Amino acid sequence: MIVIIRPDATPAQLTNVVALIEQMGCQAHISRGERRTLVGIIGNGRPFDVERIERMPGVEKTMPVTRPFKRASREFHPDNSVVAVGDVVVGGSEITVIAGPCAVETEEQMSAIGRAVAESGAQMLRGGAYKPRTSPYSFQGLGEEGLKILARVRDETGLPIVTEVIQPDLVPLVTRYADVLQIGARNMQNFALLHAVGQAHRPVLLKRGMMSTVEELLMAAEYILSHGNDRVILCERGIRTFETYTRNTLDINAVPLLKQLTHLPVIVDPSHGTGMRDLVEPVSRAAIAAGADGLIVEVHHRPDEALSDGNQSLLPEQFVELCASVGAIAAAVGRLM
Amino acid sequence: MIVIIRPDATPAQLTNVVALIEQMGCQAHISRGERRTLVGIIGNGRPFDVERIERMPGVEKTMPVTRPFKRASREFHPDNSVVAVGDVVVGGSEITVIAGPCAVETEEQMSAIGRAVAESGAQMLRGGAYKPRTSPYSFQGLGEEGLKILARVRDETGLPIVTEVIQPDLVPLVTRYADVLQIGARNMQNFALLHAVGQAHRPVLLKRGMMSTVEELLMAAEYILSHGNDRVILCERGIRTFETYTRNTLDINAVPLLKQLTHLPVIVDPSHGTGMRDLVEPVSRAAIAAGADGLIVEVHHRPDEALSDGNQSLLPEQFVELCASVGAIAAAVGRLM
Amino acid sequence: MIVIIRPDATPAQLTNVVALIEQMGCQAHISRGERRTLVGIIGNGRPFDVERIERMPGVEKTMPVTRPFKRASREFHPDNSVVAVGDVVVGGSEITVIAGPCAVETEEQMSAIGRAVAESGAQMLRGGAYKPRTSPYSFQGLGEEGLKILARVRDETGLPIVTEVIQPDLVPLVTRYADVLQIGARNMQNFALLHAVGQAHRPVLLKRGMMSTVEELLMAAEYILSHGNDRVILCERGIRTFETYTRNTLDINAVPLLKQLTHLPVIVDPSHGTGMRDLVEPVSRAAIAAGADGLIVEVHHRPDEALSDGNQSLLPEQFVELCASVGAIAAAVGRLM
Amino acid sequence: MIVIIRPDATPAQLTNVVALIEQMGCQAHISRGERRTLVGIIGNGRPFDVERIERMPGVEKTMPVTRPFKRASREFHPDNSVVAVGDVVVGGSEITVIAGPCAVETEEQMSAIGRAVAESGAQMLRGGAYKPRTSPYSFQGLGEEGLKILARVRDETGLPIVTEVIQPDLVPLVTRYADVLQIGARNMQNFALLHAVGQAHRPVLLKRGMMSTVEELLMAAEYILSHGNDRVILCERGIRTFETYTRNTLDINAVPLLKQLTHLPVIVDPSHGTGMRDLVEPVSRAAIAAGADGLIVEVHHRPDEALSDGNQSLLPEQFVELCASVGAIAAAVGRLM
Repeated sequence: MIVIIRPDATPAQLTNVVALIEQMGCQAHISRGERRTLVGIIGNGRPFDVERIERMPGVEKTMPVTRPFKRASREFHPDNSVVAVGDVVVGGSEITVIAGPCAVETEEQMSAIGRAVAESGAQMLRGGAYKPRTSPYSFQGLGEEGLKILARVRDETGLPIVTEVIQPDLVPLVTRYADVLQIGARNMQNFALLHAVGQAHRPVLLKRGMMSTVEELLMAAEYILSHGNDRVILCERGIRTFETYTRNTLDINAVPLLKQLTHLPVIVDPSHGTGMRDLVEPVSRAAIAAGADGLIVEVHHRPDEALSDGNQSLLPEQFVELCASVGAIAAAVGRLM
Repeated sequence: MIVIIRPDATPAQLTNVVALIEQMGCQAHISRGERRTLVGIIGNGRPFDVERIERMPGVEKTMPVTRPFKRASREFHPDNSVVAVGDVVVGGSEITVIAGPCAVETEEQMSAIGRAVAESGAQMLRGGAYKPRTSPYSFQGLGEEGLKILARVRDETGLPIVTEVIQPDLVPLVTRYADVLQIGARNMQNFALLHAVGQAHRPVLLKRGMMSTVEELLMAAEYILSHGNDRVILCERGIRTFETYTRNTLDINAVPLLKQLTHLPVIVDPSHGTGMRDLVEPVSRAAIAAGADGLIVEVHHRPDEALSDGNQSLLPEQFVELCASVGAIAAAVGRLM
Repeated sequence: MIVIIRPDATPAQLTNVVALIEQMGCQAHISRGERRTLVGIIGNGRPFDVERIERMPGVEKTMPVTRPFKRASREFHPDNSVVAVGDVVVGGSEITVIAGPCAVETEEQMSAIGRAVAESGAQMLRGGAYKPRTSPYSFQGLGEEGLKILARVRDETGLPIVTEVIQPDLVPLVTRYADVLQIGARNMQNFALLHAVGQAHRPVLLKRGMMSTVEELLMAAEYILSHGNDRVILCERGIRTFETYTRNTLDINAVPLLKQLTHLPVIVDPSHGTGMRDLVEPVSRAAIAAGADGLIVEVHHRPDEALSDGNQSLLPEQFVELCASVGAIAAAVGRLM
Repeated sequence: MIVIIRPDATPAQLTNVVALIEQMGCQAHISRGERRTLVGIIGNGRPFDVERIERMPGVEKTMPVTRPFKRASREFHPDNSVVAVGDVVVGGSEITVIAGPCAVETEEQMSAIGRAVAESGAQMLRGGAYKPRTSPYSFQGLGEEGLKILARVRDETGLPIVTEVIQPDLVPLVTRYADVLQIGARNMQNFALLHAVGQAHRPVLLKRGMMSTVEELLMAAEYILSHGNDRVILCERGIRTFETYTRNTLDINAVPLLKQLTHLPVIVDPSHGTGMRDLVEPVSRAAIAAGADGLIVEVHHRPDEALSDGNQSLLPEQFVELCASVGAIAAAVGRLM
């Protein structure tokens, strides 16, 4: 951390800045320049409150030298973390594919899709029982009935279940049914919810907010890790930009960047990342080629009747093709699938 | 609503689209073009599920002609809504100024700031007891103790209290103390929370998400209105763009645009909208000049010691100047203050 | 400038960095931290090539302490610059209003609009003879014939002429007719063009690129200033964001920010900044309230027949109202109009 | 094209809209809805001026049904176009790799890099003789001397030369030396330049502007095609977003989207698209996996001494690895390299 002192700061203000730094258990190194004085902070390895220094009289601004996340950082944890979900291992040598519909609609639907994706090679099943929807007039999900359907289809197919939890007081209920708790993009900075899943005994699939930076995603992961849950899987699912042809802009750079910054597994959601069925397969290949540890893909056996996001769902036969095509890429980058 | 039919659609697919439209209680008008056929939907005034049509076989896409919000729309409610909070009226001829610190820290702090802003002409007092913070290592607010402090300072100053609620299960508690429930930018699409405040007996100050469109803001208001609470105040507080010099980019266009699209009152937060103390006063003037019904401004008697957002807080004496300067603009646009 | 040294840098690499800094005529101050070493550069007041240091072995990154623009900076030129165009002074106590159509179409049109805006209080006349258009199938402007029309209408109305120049080899021709050379948003980083107008004997109206930061705008001004032309007027005209309701997002923060960073005059284009006729007047008021030195507004006597940008053009009678309404704001901020 | 008529339009206004449409040689289909009337335009296959209709009295807005580009559209040209550059074919079954430094610095440098990349499998050599730089204090390129160096290294290595042209009056000169004319991202909407290269007898490599949509890129290509040059290669090179960790956000979705919308070849620039050396190889793999026809990669034998963009340049030995790694992906998607 470097502190830039204002050109018009008084000597007493500089003295106070140095005193506060030392009181925090750190060391201060002063460099006097032509127009400005800088104070370098030599930390003691523990996080401290930057804003307290930024607000001191005489301080122009601070500039971070190291990143604000610790537990999520590869700097302090060089080896890859792997997250086990039953027999499935996310973040190891094998690519993990999670597939299923956007929303749980009926047991018949989940069972048909679950059996289809299990046969094609998916290792986990996704499906939303609680849906965050921008319009109050849209389908909001089946709630606990949806969770029960998911549990029955898990028994039928053997696939672990990934499902979204949208408010803190539902965490205990969803935990009873789900194998992985998903935090959706709109909730990436719902800190009460991050706190709650940080205390849950289930792995968490944390989706990047559509308006969030890579650093904010890692800080959200830090919330979960700092509350005691170290089984976090990150998911790039596209960000909002000025481009309107596609629903979101999938940030492919984020995949190798995250793999460099953090030890946590990173998967990609090409369905929300593009919003267009025809782009899902090529972007899935790109994700694995860039180093992603897996995919989460929307599949629906009757996309034209799906109660949400049908435009971006693959048919089961398209999902078969995707698995073959992604498998070839996985082999080309030395991964199994 | 217009439905674009794919060039390769079969006659049966077109027939099915028309049948679904009529089954929804609407009328369908077919236009056959050189390359494509269009179906215009003549609605019956009630909202319907667009996505269901978009997913039908043979449909290329749909294009809205009218906007998806109803209760929030000025089209169906031409007169301005005013929201009364005790004796204060938001959205009438008078400009409403809400002021106070980012976070409640101590009773001494709130009392000092509350008395100062009351004297300068603020009509309501703001202060956060629950703080959504991006880092788990930052100050998270005093919780209920903060609410109690706010209530005591309301008694002392006579100013109604605006404070943020960050999770649904806290709505009853916050409602016991607060006069206005604030929904923060990060929670604008926390639908469980919108649902909860939609059933509360308090006005709601709804802040625009930093990467949400004007239409999404109006849809979030629609959530609250559709759950029974019609006292909603909208707040433009800056959006995230590529410009990094300022903390956010205050979307001044949104002020007259919202006043045109909706009957709800619109206020502006120049503190978060700029993130720089020196820009707060000029941007406050701009907001009122553009037609805003009020301001929500951060004021702290010791910004250098503030536990959050000190960089953008005004000193009480700067707030006095702001009120004078904004008052002159209010007069120039024919408003009282 | 601060140089961050990589944790794995060798002592020889650090020595080389220091040697290069001293060879550039600057001083180097070394601070050794727990994990990283920093080198502060104490400059000699002259600009130097940052990238050369960034590429040295052992360097992680550099962080600027001062801004990269010099001639445009208020730090080195504390007083406001004023730009005189004939009898009109931009950047002084008086607000300058430039008005006219997007494109020159006919002499009858320019004459009618010119006389109307002159009567309403505009001090300069705008109109494009060369139009940069995104589609090759749209009207591209009248070229030199348009310049001749502008010159005749200047003689008729006494209003100085502002018109766009779109390529370097046209600068001499446009200079023969125009009083102010406009650089359009798409050309803000057309460096050959900046070079050419930097050598011209005419004031330059430099529009911010729709994808450009405030700092890049100031660097573009620096190009013009560094080639010898110190009469530069900056223009905020809206940036591209995710919001699609309005054509652009007018960055109102940029107005007081630019006034703080630079001594150059700053005007605002509410027509392109909003793209919607109904928003032009409220946003014009906001611009002047925020401290802008003037406005450039599109006016057309028959907007429904305009060959470009008719949707955002005011009728002459609407422009009369705008001038009255903006005049009241100017008075409220202590400016004349 | 659909025209939405305002609710308050008069019958005469509607009649005039229909008359104008018919006068343009198209047919008009009227649909009367509950609140609004729509007019569908049945075109005659030729482009027409949309804005003229948008500005008519009584028109609320228009909505395009088909896209505004014609010559670039796959709808009218279903087969892939291939662009031959000497013996190299871009857009066929083989992946094309273009490599070289950002800027031409010396003959020794170009020769060393040219020989290295030729050996590793690059098919063309890049290098800038004219550099558009945001700061007037940075290296601006060697000019014609740089072109001569490029020509000599072409003779030495046999690699065709790709180099940027930055202003219209340089097109004849650059054409004398270069095999492919590059239009840089900042010039994507420099229409005078697009016009000039549209009349040149060289293939054009057109880079997407950093804040341009896919549709604007295709309209820029349309400019070149409509001026007679049908040898256009498109290049995705990253867009500007709120994410600041990487220099740009490479829009991987754009690759399969462009391949679907247009018949022109599409290549990717992972060097500018990421701005970080460590991300170049994984993102190159992603690009080919997504269906790109080639890559343009920055390689420098001494990146720490490069006069521009050294941070994102690969060493020749890293480029060898990239080629091997990309070759495996090419094979996995059935392409040669």
